[in-house]
Parts: sequence; structure tokens; C-alpha cells
Amino acid sequence: MTTILGQNQYGKAENRVVKITRDGDTHHIKDLNVSVSLSGDMDEVHYSGSNANVLPTDTTKNTVFAFAKERGVESAEQFGIHLARHFVTSQEPIHRARIRIEEYAWERIEGSDAQSGKKHSFVRSGQEVRLTQVTYDGSAWEVVSGLKDLTVLNSTDSEFWGYVKDKYTTLQETNDRILATEVSGRWRFNWTDDAAEMPDWEASYQETRKHMLQAFADTYSLSLQQTMYEMGKRIIDGRSEIDEVRFSLPNKHHFLVDLEPFGLKNDNEVYFAADRPYGLIEATILRDGCKARIPVDLTNL
Amino acid sequence: MTTILGQNQYGKAENRVVKITRDGDTHHIKDLNVSVSLSGDMDEVHYSGSNANVLPTDTTKNTVFAFAKERGVESAEQFGIHLARHFVTSQEPIHRARIRIEEYAWERIEGSDAQSGKKHSFVRSGQEVRLTQVTYDGSAWEVVSGLKDLTVLNSTDSEFWGYVKDKYTTLQETNDRILATEVSGRWRFNWTDDAAEMPDWEASYQETRKHMLQAFADTYSLSLQQTMYEMGKRIIDGRSEIDEVRFSLPNKHHFLVDLEPFGLKNDNEVYFAADRPYGLIEATILRDGCKARIPVDLTNL
Amino acid sequence: MTTILGQNQYGKAENRVVKITRDGDTHHIKDLNVSVSLSGDMDEVHYSGSNANVLPTDTTKNTVFAFAKERGVESAEQFGIHLARHFVTSQEPIHRARIRIEEYAWERIEGSDAQSGKKHSFVRSGQEVRLTQVTYDGSAWEVVSGLKDLTVLNSTDSEFWGYVKDKYTTLQETNDRILATEVSGRWRFNWTDDAAEMPDWEASYQETRKHMLQAFADTYSLSLQQTMYEMGKRIIDGRSEIDEVRFSLPNKHHFLVDLEPFGLKNDNEVYFAADRPYGLIEATILRDGCKARIPVDLTNL
Amino acid sequence: MTTILGQNQYGKAENRVVKITRDGDTHHIKDLNVSVSLSGDMDEVHYSGSNANVLPTDTTKNTVFAFAKERGVESAEQFGIHLARHFVTSQEPIHRARIRIEEYAWERIEGSDAQSGKKHSFVRSGQEVRLTQVTYDGSAWEVVSGLKDLTVLNSTDSEFWGYVKDKYTTLQETNDRILATEVSGRWRFNWTDDAAEMPDWEASYQETRKHMLQAFADTYSLSLQQTMYEMGKRIIDGRSEIDEVRFSLPNKHHFLVDLEPFGLKNDNEVYFAADRPYGLIEATILRDGCKARIPVDLTNL
Repeated sequence: MTTILGQNQYGKAENRVVKITRDGDTHHIKDLNVSVSLSGDMDEVHYSGSNANVLPTDTTKNTVFAFAKERGVESAEQFGIHLARHFVTSQEPIHRARIRIEEYAWERIEGSDAQSGKKHSFVRSGQEVRLTQVTYDGSAWEVVSGLKDLTVLNSTDSEFWGYVKDKYTTLQETNDRILATEVSGRWRFNWTDDAAEMPDWEASYQETRKHMLQAFADTYSLSLQQTMYEMGKRIIDGRSEIDEVRFSLPNKHHFLVDLEPFGLKNDNEVYFAADRPYGLIEATILRDGCKARIPVDLTNL
Repeated sequence: MTTILGQNQYGKAENRVVKITRDGDTHHIKDLNVSVSLSGDMDEVHYSGSNANVLPTDTTKNTVFAFAKERGVESAEQFGIHLARHFVTSQEPIHRARIRIEEYAWERIEGSDAQSGKKHSFVRSGQEVRLTQVTYDGSAWEVVSGLKDLTVLNSTDSEFWGYVKDKYTTLQETNDRILATEVSGRWRFNWTDDAAEMPDWEASYQETRKHMLQAFADTYSLSLQQTMYEMGKRIIDGRSEIDEVRFSLPNKHHFLVDLEPFGLKNDNEVYFAADRPYGLIEATILRDGCKARIPVDLTNL
Repeated sequence: MTTILGQNQYGKAENRVVKITRDGDTHHIKDLNVSVSLSGDMDEVHYSGSNANVLPTDTTKNTVFAFAKERGVESAEQFGIHLARHFVTSQEPIHRARIRIEEYAWERIEGSDAQSGKKHSFVRSGQEVRLTQVTYDGSAWEVVSGLKDLTVLNSTDSEFWGYVKDKYTTLQETNDRILATEVSGRWRFNWTDDAAEMPDWEASYQETRKHMLQAFADTYSLSLQQTMYEMGKRIIDGRSEIDEVRFSLPNKHHFLVDLEPFGLKNDNEVYFAADRPYGLIEATILRDGCKARIPVDLTNL
Repeated sequence: MTTILGQNQYGKAENRVVKITRDGDTHHIKDLNVSVSLSGDMDEVHYSGSNANVLPTDTTKNTVFAFAKERGVESAEQFGIHLARHFVTSQEPIHRARIRIEEYAWERIEGSDAQSGKKHSFVRSGQEVRLTQVTYDGSAWEVVSGLKDLTVLNSTDSEFWGYVKDKYTTLQETNDRILATEVSGRWRFNWTDDAAEMPDWEASYQETRKHMLQAFADTYSLSLQQTMYEMGKRIIDGRSEIDEVRFSLPNKHHFLVDLEPFGLKNDNEVYFAADRPYGLIEATILRDGCKARIPVDLTNL
């Protein structure tokens, strides 16, 4: 045999499940996109096509919808934990389950009669997509949560100077620029053991997001790297349940437009928002003494 | 000559201009995507390639950025009016200008020190994209505003029954379903004349959006068509500056998942959010006595 | 009543139907995305929610799949004609049907044994998306076909100079530039009457596409408008079944990079392919004596 | 200090460089999207915002365009090698460079006069996007190439049965189905040392792609895993310069439409092409005795 099988995984991706919970006339909504990925004793299906150890991806899809009813959706993290435990403990050939969930937030719409008591109308928030990934191998848990598509901007308090110059450098230094980025972040919880108490997943998300945004607003920035590190540090300092943060931050360039050809002075007022190319700044921020486990690349090859 | 030139237009599309206005430590942001389209005496450039009547699209781009400084960006509509008037009145061969603008909303981020007085940090709202289209031919104005990408959902108070059945009909009637759509709407102002007083464009947008959302929440729905009509009617009734509304509403199907094979009862709790195909419901709602002018197709061929 | 209902239409959009035809071991594939839009006597569903005249969009979906079996898919145009006729003639309240179809092309993959005789493996072409729109009101037909997403580029034989200059003009003239665009085109057939002989839809598409590409390659260009007009003229001259062509052509700018700061001469070799903003050039080209019917805007408001 | 900096990298992403090479009237085109990522002695910029060790991302962009002139673009791999070596060897604080490149293929357009001798017109192929990633740390090279967005389909010779059934299983077994996927693949070269002879990057890509497609067409499939393994095995067996292959293959489901309610028999003719959810099948295939180095997740968290 000249070739062998390495790491492999399979499952149903992007199961779009919406759960409505009715509390009298007040409805609650959870809107998730759930992807299941299973690994284990799967050599034969690759070598010969025997499906004897393969739980169909269609079954994993059915399980997601059934669990939304059977276990409910308290939080994306808790839902992922229910699913991962089920696959690993109910099927002998499955040794590891990884559940990835995107969550879309909704806000309530008020009707014209605020006294109507009806609370079943929603508008999608449209801001960030909340993320979680739960991995279980039958003994230890890894929970990494995060978000993507959250665009933030400081219109001042950002400088960039004192950098290396070589023969290809043409950039001018600046002491007042727009700093904008679309945050893609992940944070790893130190909860790994069923015997330990779980974090409050919902509260943790809201507080982590708030720390991140406040650090972005508070930091007088000499580089996007500095701002990014402050964002991660604020999370680690403020949230004892989190040991590691990884960011991938595109520098969404806003170039000051040269209006001099038209006899106009551009006093940091008119900017061109560029698409490509963009700076891409990435780092891991760790609680001292902890090891990094989040993959380096949040974006694709 | 076997062929002739018909309607034609040209310009620079998608100029991404960001305008920062500083009021002491309080900054304001306007974030626009501006597309210019010009028509007029342009036969020669098509027939022979002579550019003698052609203002370059690069110049139309420069004009957008220069006007952000010279005229400011009070509202997308007002900015479009400045631009359209300029092109038609300053260049003899240009007989018509159409300015389309997308606007992206931003909210303020509070830093950790609410007393800091610094107000230059923003997070993009990410909800709907606001739209306007201003057209000017040297005598009359047409302003059509609107929005897209606003997703709304009612988790009850929606039925669907009593429809036509033919040999291809398999759908079951229902008296309780989720009704969800991603609103794409346009509304035409009856302001057409420079001599008349302009609407308050910003207030008009906020109130129109509110009417639309309230009508969506208020309507007990027997069909998406009925809800759509109520949304348009509420705008026409509530906003005297608007004579015509056009909607293109995808019916974002949420199918109740059949959990019976797993011994579970799905009491309007667990839904599958489908992508394609989707219903597409479109209509114009008019103030009685007015003529329709918004194109029938908001979406592409 | 202060408001009235204007033009309206509804149906199921984006039905993704794949039809496999087996001719022994040789399989053929047609891959379509079919959108149905119906109009007629639909006031009541908007005013009161009565669905008594409404054929459900779910039924229109079923009809698309059933017709793929019953009538086959000879061409997208012929398939659209079958569907449009069915809806208008089988349902009294429906007065007009419009069928829009996207078609995705596939090429055959050869296995390693060319003698195997097996012909059921395909790779998606990925080039342009073919389009057609068939409209029928019970008496006359309108067929508009076309394509989108076909990107073409000339690396020379393009100039741009002699244009209007105003106070906002900074562009330098050039006598050698890259000309590139992503073609979005539509063409209208003069077949409108059931009694007349239909065009050969498949041959017409292939020849029209060829005329368009050849005209793009042949034209020494002084402006994108000139090239566009030649592309339309070549179609009208070469295809007697077509009376009208509409193009929407983004000028995909390729800017010559200034390498002088690095002591290098850029002799029309290294270009930066820009995203936004872009020129947008649109026109209708007509057979002399014919009237334009294709909407002016192929792109969205 | 409660937090520390972990792995970090930065650079300019998505530099869109187009290189035209003129060989008399015959022009050649290379169309690349180049992303630069640098790591090294970068603690200070994160901790204090000092840019003393930071080569600006703007400079890395300039370097990409300058190198397209200075070194030419023989292949994406060779271009990436030039760039990676430059950054690591020219800047002391930079210890590692990773260059990722997307390449878009173009085909020639023939004008109407095949004798014209002009060869400067192109149409973008639109099929797969070719990929490469070159990493250099000053001593060893790692080159991983691949592709994405290549959609393939077998209309028969695919079965699925004999799988595990649990209480959530409802799927019916089948012995004739459509098998379709959108290939995302990466392969790692065993060239790591400057002293060794480089592969012929262009020939290697074409042959690897051919092996992959032929294996897809040749394999009578009992599971997508089996087909995927054959595709990897064929590459390893046929290309001695490659030691490792990683695939991420969505199972693009084509569901046989139930036409029985309409009195029709669907004899594997009419399919519904579904979007979400989809199976996702991923694996590494290795030359026996080699270690895996390509990351497990080609797709995002």
C-alpha cells in the first residue's frame, strides 16, 4: 500500500434550525446554523466504501432537529454540548464529535399598540454572527466561542509612524487616521470537565463582547496590533472563564482623499473606504501560563 | 444603417465615501456608496468612439468626493440632489443625471469611562441598507428612497388556506405558521419641483420605516400579499410626502419539522429555515389618483 | 379608500431543477434555476387576504418539476414556453406568466479509460450563466435571452483620450490600456406569435455568444461605449431572429502600477485590478425601425 | 502580567496583480490575488504600539507589484518563493513569511479573422480557482498547492446503503443516485530544500488536476468517502513530488423529486439540487511513511 488515510471527519453542515418558545403571548426565538462533524473508526468507508460504521449525515441532521425539541436550546454552547455527547456516547465507532454553531440575533418589533400584549414580532439584528464550537472525545470538552462580521471604527485617536522603511516603502506617516476593522474573534473556555461547573454561556458572551468593544473605543492606537492586544487582554482580565483569545482583524483602510487638485483642503473629513487589498492582523492573546489551542488560521487557505 | 442606438447611460458606480464631521469631541459619520449615471448627447462615442461629449467616469468619481467637502452630506437625498443638479447644469451634453446611493448606519460605542466625553467610536448597525435614487432632467426631480436586507419574522398570527388547488397541488393548509421576509422596498416622494418645499429626508425615512415595521407586527395575516399591502397602505396613509410604494418580498419559508418518526410532537416549536426555492411577492401600492413610476422589477432579470 | 393596488405579481423563485436524460451509457444534463411569476385577478388577496384566486407558489414549484418530466427540457426557452402557457391557459384568474431561467453549463469529464464507453461524468463550466425570460399574456409571447458573469479582457488595442475636462478632472489620457468587462447582456427575439416558426434556441445562443466575443476581440477601442455598440451591432447584423440588445458593462479597471519610486519602468506589464468604484456603461442597440422593450436597468436600484 | 502574546502574523491581503507579457503580437496573462503574512520579533508593536520592527503592510503590497516586474510571474509557486525569500532575508526582525496566492485562469478569444495574428483577447475561464501557499522560515520551505470551486457530478454509478441506523434514521437506501461535489483540495510538495531541484509547478498542477478528475469519473462509488480517497490515492500514486493531499468535499445533494402525486414515474430523471444542509466529507491522504502537515480545517470555524 503506497497511501494511507490520515485525519478524517464527516457530518451534515449548516442545519438551519429555528426554535420558537411560547411563554403565553410572549414568544422567544433561537436561530441557529448547526454543523456536525464526526470522527472515529472510519477506515473502511474510505478504503472499500463499506458504510457499516457510518451514521448517515442525514441522521445527524435529524438529530439536530429532534434535540431542539427534546433538549431545547438554552444557549448555542449548551445545545452543542448535548449533541456532541449524544454522538460520542451513543455510537461506538464515533470517537469524537465537533459541533459548530452560528447564531443570528433578533430584536423585538413593537406594534403600534404597545398595550396589545402581543410579543411575537422580530427584526433580525444583522450585526455580528455569534459562533461556538464544541468538541468532545468522550473524556474532555473544548468550547471555543466567538463572533464574526462586527465592523467597528474610530474616527480619530489612531496614529501610524516610526515603522521600518526599505526600498519599496512609499507610505507617509500619519498622526491622525481612521482605524476600522471587521472583528473576527474566538475565545476558549477553561471548562473542560463534566464535573466542573459550567459558565453562564449567555452572560459570558454579552460581557466578552462588551469588553472587546470598550477596549476598542478606549485605546489610543499607535498600531492595529496594539488595539487588538488590548481587546484580548481586556477579555482575559475580565473573564476568568476564558484563557485564550484569537483575533483576525482586517485593517479596513479609509484613505484621506486628496482634494487639493480641486482647491479644497481635506481636514480629516472625506475618506475613500477601500475594499482590497487590506492589512490583515492576527494574534493569539493568552492567560499567562496557558497553552494555545485555537488554530492560527481563522480564514481559509 | 441596420442598427441604431437606444437608451444609454454611463458613469462611475459604487464610490465609497465616508464623511466625518467633528463637533468638538463629538464626531458624526455618514457612510455612503454613490453611483452616478449620466445620459444625453452621447451618440458619437457609441458610433465612432469620439469622447468629445464624454465627461470621464473618473471625473464623476472626483466630483462625488469633492462635493462631500464642498456641500457636505446632510442626507443621502440632499447629497444626490446636489450632484444631479451639478452634472445636468454644468455640462451641456448631459441631459439627465441619476444618482443612486446606499447608506450604511452606524451606532455609537460607549467606552468604559462614560464621562470621558470622547465620542468617536462606532459599530456598524448591520441591519438594513438605506437607499435613495435621485433623477433630474433639468426641469423635474424624481426622488425614490427605500431600503433592502431588513429581515422580519412573526412567529404566529399567520395562516394560509382557501387557495386554488389543481393537479399539481400538494400543500397542506395551515392556520398557524411563521411568516418571515427580507424587506426590499422603495417609495416615491411627490416632491418634483425646486420651487416646492423639500421633505425632511431624515425624519421621513425614520417614520416610514417605523410605519412599515408596525404594520408588519400589527397585521393578522391570511397571506403575505395582505401583509405587504398593509405595509404600503400604512406608509401612504401616514406620510403625505409619499405617493407610491413598491415591495419585493421573498417568503422566507420556515417549515415545521416532522418529528413524528422520532416519537415527538412538534407543537409549532421547531422549524427548518429554507433557502431556495422561496415565494416572491411583489406589488405597488399607490395613493389613489397617482400614477406608478417605480419599475416593476426591483430584482434582476 | 386612500390607497389602491398597482402592478403585482407572485410565484416561486429559484426552483433548482436538474434533468438527466439517459441515452444508453451516454447521459445528458440540463441544470436550471427556474423562477415563476404570475399576475392576474389578484386584488382580493391583497385587500382582504382571500386566497380564492391564488394558486399557491408551492404548486408552481411542483409544476416546474413535473414539467421537467412531462415535457422535457429541450432548451431553457422551450421549457419556459411550456410553463408560461400552462399557467395562463389552465387558471382563469391568471392573465400573465413570466418565467425566468438561469442555466449552468457542464462539460464532460473523460475517465482514464477513453474506451470505457461511460459518459456520465461532468464538470461545471463555471463561465457565464445563461439567462432567459419568457412572458405570455394569452396572446403574444416575449422571449428575452442573455447571459451574465462572462469576464473578457483585451490587453491592448484600447485608448482613452479627447474627453471633456472640467475642474474636477485629473485623469491622464492614454493610448494603450487594458480593457476588461464582465458582460451582462440581454437580447430580445422577434418571435411573438405561436403561428410563426420558433428560432432554434440552442443554436441561436451559441452563435450570439460567438458574435459578441468576436466583436469584443476585433474592435480597436477608443471607448468602452464603442466596443459595446459593436458587440450589439454584430448580433443584430448576424442574427435575424433578434431585434434588440441591452448591455450593462462594468469597466473593470486595471490600473498601471507606478513602479518609478522603485527605479523600475512599467512598460504596460504590471497592473492593479481594482474592485470599486468602476465605470458602468449601459445601452440598448436596436434593429432599425424596432422599438425597445428590454428594461433600462439590468441591475438593481 | 496576566496576559501574554501568542502566535501572531500580519501583512497585506488580496493584492490583485495582473501581469501581461508581450511576445510580439502574442500576449500572455497571469492573474493573481496575493496575500502576504509575516511573523517574527513583533512583541513590542502589540505591547506598546512601537512600530520599530514593523515593515508596513503597504510596503509588502508595493513589493508584490515590484516583484511582478523584477522577477516575473513564471508560476504562482515560483512567485511566492521569490517573495517569501525576500521578506525573510531582507528584514532581520522577520523570521517567517507565508505567501498565499489565488490564480484565475484565462482562455484566448479568437477574433473573426483567424489570420489577423492578434492574440491579446481573453475570456476568464471561471472554473476552479488555483491556490498555492508558500512558507519559508529562513531554512526550510513548505509549498502547498490546490484548488477550490471545481464542481463535478456523476449522474450514475453511485450507491449508498448498509449504513448504521439509529432511532433518528429515516433515510432510504439507494443503489443509483447522483454524486456531486465542489472540490476543495490541497496537496503538499516534498520539496523543502533550496539545494533540491524544484518541481515543474505548472505541469504538476495540470497533471494533478487530471488525476483527480479521472479518479472521480472512474470510481464506482459506494460512499463519497471512497471516491475522495481514490482521488487522493491517484494523486499520490501518480505524482512523486506530492506526499499529502487534503480534501474538503461538500456532498451537493440532488434529491430525486417525488412525482407520484402527479401520476408520474421519476426514473432517475428529475432532481432537486439542494443548497443547505449538505454533507461535508473531509480527509487527509498520505504517502505511506509521511507525516501530515496540512491543517485539518480548510473551512472556517
